[in-house]
Amino acid sequence: MPSFDYDLFVIGGGSGGVRSARVAASLGKKVGIAEEYRFGGTCVIRGCVPKKLFVYASQFHEHFEDATGYGWTVGETSFDWKKLIAAKDREIVRLEGLYRKGLETAGAEIFESRAELVNAHTVRLTGLDRTVTAERIVIAVGGAPNPHAALPGHELCISSNEAFHLETLPKSILVAGGGYIAVEFANIFHGLGVETTLIYRGQEILSRFDQDMRRGLHEAMTAKGIRILLQDVIQEVSRNDAGGLSVRTMNNGGLEVDTVMLALGRDPNTKGLGLDNAGVATDERGAIVVDAYSRTNVPSIFALGDVTDRVQLTPVAIHEAMCFIETEYRNNPTPADHDLIATAVFSQPEIGTVGFSEEAAARKYGELEIYRAQFRPMKATLSGRQEKTIMKLIVNAADRKVVGAHILGHDAGEMAQLLGITLKAGCTKDDFDRTMAVHPTAAEELVTMYVPSYRIRNGERV
Amino acid sequence: MPSFDYDLFVIGGGSGGVRSARVAASLGKKVGIAEEYRFGGTCVIRGCVPKKLFVYASQFHEHFEDATGYGWTVGETSFDWKKLIAAKDREIVRLEGLYRKGLETAGAEIFESRAELVNAHTVRLTGLDRTVTAERIVIAVGGAPNPHAALPGHELCISSNEAFHLETLPKSILVAGGGYIAVEFANIFHGLGVETTLIYRGQEILSRFDQDMRRGLHEAMTAKGIRILLQDVIQEVSRNDAGGLSVRTMNNGGLEVDTVMLALGRDPNTKGLGLDNAGVATDERGAIVVDAYSRTNVPSIFALGDVTDRVQLTPVAIHEAMCFIETEYRNNPTPADHDLIATAVFSQPEIGTVGFSEEAAARKYGELEIYRAQFRPMKATLSGRQEKTIMKLIVNAADRKVVGAHILGHDAGEMAQLLGITLKAGCTKDDFDRTMAVHPTAAEELVTMYVPSYRIRNGERV
Repeated sequence: MPSFDYDLFVIGGGSGGVRSARVAASLGKKVGIAEEYRFGGTCVIRGCVPKKLFVYASQFHEHFEDATGYGWTVGETSFDWKKLIAAKDREIVRLEGLYRKGLETAGAEIFESRAELVNAHTVRLTGLDRTVTAERIVIAVGGAPNPHAALPGHELCISSNEAFHLETLPKSILVAGGGYIAVEFANIFHGLGVETTLIYRGQEILSRFDQDMRRGLHEAMTAKGIRILLQDVIQEVSRNDAGGLSVRTMNNGGLEVDTVMLALGRDPNTKGLGLDNAGVATDERGAIVVDAYSRTNVPSIFALGDVTDRVQLTPVAIHEAMCFIETEYRNNPTPADHDLIATAVFSQPEIGTVGFSEEAAARKYGELEIYRAQFRPMKATLSGRQEKTIMKLIVNAADRKVVGAHILGHDAGEMAQLLGITLKAGCTKDDFDRTMAVHPTAAEELVTMYVPSYRIRNGERV
Repeated sequence: MPSFDYDLFVIGGGSGGVRSARVAASLGKKVGIAEEYRFGGTCVIRGCVPKKLFVYASQFHEHFEDATGYGWTVGETSFDWKKLIAAKDREIVRLEGLYRKGLETAGAEIFESRAELVNAHTVRLTGLDRTVTAERIVIAVGGAPNPHAALPGHELCISSNEAFHLETLPKSILVAGGGYIAVEFANIFHGLGVETTLIYRGQEILSRFDQDMRRGLHEAMTAKGIRILLQDVIQEVSRNDAGGLSVRTMNNGGLEVDTVMLALGRDPNTKGLGLDNAGVATDERGAIVVDAYSRTNVPSIFALGDVTDRVQLTPVAIHEAMCFIETEYRNNPTPADHDLIATAVFSQPEIGTVGFSEEAAARKYGELEIYRAQFRPMKATLSGRQEKTIMKLIVNAADRKVVGAHILGHDAGEMAQLLGITLKAGCTKDDFDRTMAVHPTAAEELVTMYVPSYRIRNGERV
């Protein structure tokens, strides 16, 4: 048996990589981990965490407005973008430190360097001009925003990466894309006072989500003052005389904006990684092909997280890392479970969802009961804010199992997390019905919808 | 068979009474309902609903403070109590109208009058000088704050009833009691800028709740600036020269405050109701004794909601009403189910809870796994607010069932509602573990606590 420098070498210091390295090291394995930028990965450095901090920042103006209906008078308010960026950066530095400390405490060796594969057991640390060998290699290098290189003027546009570090807050922005990143940032910028337009080629934002969520959020965003252009794309971006950007669209003519943000999907970070040297197979999008145990076609090499383009979510990468550890180091073969993943869109209002949309469920099940409630949240009664909460349960009539749950409204993400348990456990609508309401909450609607709003039989609403 | 004026006569227009009357009428029964004050009952008129509106009002000052850490500058703010009262009153009038309309639409006859029992089938409408007969009578007259008549000066104090209609907001208040009403109002008044003290005879606020919730909330309230006096009681209240109140306590000397609010439990509203005329039995507290079907000892008379002093919660009264309807009018005998009622305390931070406290579970189960997480909510990282969220799962080691779930923190009530489904459905800790996290949320902690914080064996922490 050959001897290696490391039992495990991890390339990439994001959620999946750090978890793999930390836990393996804590089990006594000799572990190295290389990161070329900052530990924490997309989630901590330029994803989930700073995004949610921005969401909080962008919600205060509504708190100020809502206060009036409750008897408060609020003096003039103003917002300082640079202060937010600085505060956010301090928090990210703190979290990055926690990630490093976790690795160090567990005994993993940290390399601040880009790493590339030399062969099935060898990694070259390009920044350190050093080569190391390992029995197992985990690739967890994540993904990056698609730059849309075919778009004339794409180099004038920003992605979510740059959105976290803009020198100044633009007066106007055009966000291209209809996925959750585009939608979240459109709401953030609008909430911070930026004139915001979203452009998306599809028929409705958030494809694959339940139609009620898609329409409901669209209406709410429009009512707030966000302009949404559907079935349209940017054809060209150029610098205008005023120092802003001129955007030519296919169907809505020209727009003049300060900033264009492209949120058109994310690509696996596999370029220049040396995958060919080691013979690691990728798919047509450049994602590393893996099995349920995150094994690549090369027995010593594993890949997990966004670089595998399975489900691009932090908890999924962490789950895949834990399954890798169980399988490889604890003699407990554990396939990753990607079924019934609850998720949230931190739009304003939020979306929380788990399981099948009505549309997807209608294709799979013969008969569905659809329970749907739409109501004004209690807080809005005095604030006067025009907003609605939508809650929806999709129930398979044959066995009464709840196969989809969807919420548009405050705290939808928190609710989706717990609804996730009920769907994963196979709870039935009867379990929901048996549960006493907690009053006054929004979630009580989910246990007090006793009669189906309508049914779907063989794909048709009846 | 004798003939009656009504199939059903309901005394009391609160949550349970209105639900009974409305649904019975919609089933074609001839229904009368009498209410001496306002339709909607405690919940709508002087309980859950206005209370939660006050909670919202009292939270804005924290929003203003939190904004600073997110880059906002907020001008001078002020609060106008009269404006809040007026806005709240308008909303209550609207809700009261909805309750009436629901009754009218269903075809129930409304009597604006006090009603008292004459015999097993006869009700006297005292305000209308009229007597009516009914095949069945439902008593749903609710409860009222205990006036603590033995306290010298109790007539100078207010209860929660008056708190909703104070002419002016006091500068200082002493709230007596350790239950959820006392705790909620202490937080409301403090949040609106009132110097607030809470006095309670017990060792810790919120008896019967999980100890971590009790201590955690106590610490949070104290940290905010609410003074809490435990193991102490008010001995006398008198008017002082300044027009305020002098309070003598047993162990903490004298206090001078503008207002004293007594929240020392609620008594069933059975006085003068004519229960003796009809031979309806009550217990030593004056509550009407009923079986699981809300039947009194008199076959034609039923009682439900707070007047029966089972579980004093709106959804429980509604549930009891629906069980009455199923049993009496749908030929589907349905006992009320009071097991595993999730509930919320709208303190600041909130408490959401369902199932056994650690202490109660330790008495019932041989071995428990306790999962406990304590963390700073993400929003607080930038606001700088010193607060912590506590989440706790109590698991019966023998079958892995989650038998208690407790949360102190934002949105705890919403979470408790959905955790209620999981406990009612008998979900196990494995069901929680199998559920993917939704990131970043607070609730994800509930599905990522993989290792017990400690165990309880035969009542002892090990």
